Amino acid sequence: MDFSSKLLEEAVNEMSQLPGIGRRTALRLVLHLLKQPESQTVALSKALLDLKTEVKFCRKCHNISDTDLCEICASHNRQKEVVCVVEDIRDVMAIENTSQYRGLYHVLGGKINPMEGVGPSQLTIRSLVEKAKNGEIEEIIFALSSTLEGDTTNFYIFKQLEGVNVKTSTIARGISVGDELEYADEVTLGRSITNRIPFESSLRN
Amino acid sequence: MDFSSKLLEEAVNEMSQLPGIGRRTALRLVLHLLKQPESQTVALSKALLDLKTEVKFCRKCHNISDTDLCEICASHNRQKEVVCVVEDIRDVMAIENTSQYRGLYHVLGGKINPMEGVGPSQLTIRSLVEKAKNGEIEEIIFALSSTLEGDTTNFYIFKQLEGVNVKTSTIARGISVGDELEYADEVTLGRSITNRIPFESSLRN
Repeated sequence: MDFSSKLLEEAVNEMSQLPGIGRRTALRLVLHLLKQPESQTVALSKALLDLKTEVKFCRKCHNISDTDLCEICASHNRQKEVVCVVEDIRDVMAIENTSQYRGLYHVLGGKINPMEGVGPSQLTIRSLVEKAKNGEIEEIIFALSSTLEGDTTNFYIFKQLEGVNVKTSTIARGISVGDELEYADEVTLGRSITNRIPFESSLRN
Repeated sequence: MDFSSKLLEEAVNEMSQLPGIGRRTALRLVLHLLKQPESQTVALSKALLDLKTEVKFCRKCHNISDTDLCEICASHNRQKEVVCVVEDIRDVMAIENTSQYRGLYHVLGGKINPMEGVGPSQLTIRSLVEKAKNGEIEEIIFALSSTLEGDTTNFYIFKQLEGVNVKTSTIARGISVGDELEYADEVTLGRSITNRIPFESSLRN
């Protein structure tokens, strides 16, 4: 693309660095901002910069937080001995939305992915293992997505916990509520049969 | 969505003001920026602010430009008496990419759209009519998209030019090169038959 303005080109270049935003979309977004009042661009720039420079991570669970200890970790109504291991804040938000979980979280900040240069040391695995060794935790629930990277990360943490007195569990995989059996993939369907539960416990939900 | 951080919420709110960016996508983009080096966020914010505060519009064609008179209007190699009327800079870039046009442009900045509160006075129609009345222009080529709003705008300008000694034309509508006739819509196919051209002239391109 040939731009008539260096300023425009620069803005499009920076915008198209974002994931899933190509140069055409970036141009559309930038031209939209140009048509809006200046206050909108100022507010967007300020919000992004403020977030980047002032963001804090909870010292206990590593979730994004405005305070030193996040609301969930600081709450007195949560089971502090149960910790759910998730990838990032989006997973925390998804689980919180279910209102089914009363324990704490541990945000890893990613999954082990050698292809993208993410090793165990870039994640917050060490602090999780330390919490377990200190006897703070009774149960660790693995809730990473069941991909190659997720399974690798789960297994790595599991090995690190060898000899530590802590229960580990993983969230149930199975057919989604409301889904038709005939369209389910074989792995999921197979697992849902292997890991069947007593009928009476399904009535509780 | 319930955020654990006001800073994050603010950034997501601002990002989701952009067209086609929902709150989930906004969260994904913002979390991506959080993982990247701070320089990327600084560069993005700076580029957007610089564009908004320092952008200039060519005083002749109203296209986005870094200078008072844009490169196209200032060039000695263009036919200054032919002016192509387009909606915005993207159309200029699309036509320039064809390398088929040697005239100048006139960027309207939008189309007449009462539903969105865009009337003729918000567009640069008056300056176009003045250029025509001053005798600077021999031919005006309408190249707005053929929607209700585009046709309305074309017709409004056409009426404003009554009594002015200027030729008006509109870009050809027809079947795209490489398209199959059977899949073309009826209006386009109909027009392409009505507006057929001598076979010899098709050999020139």
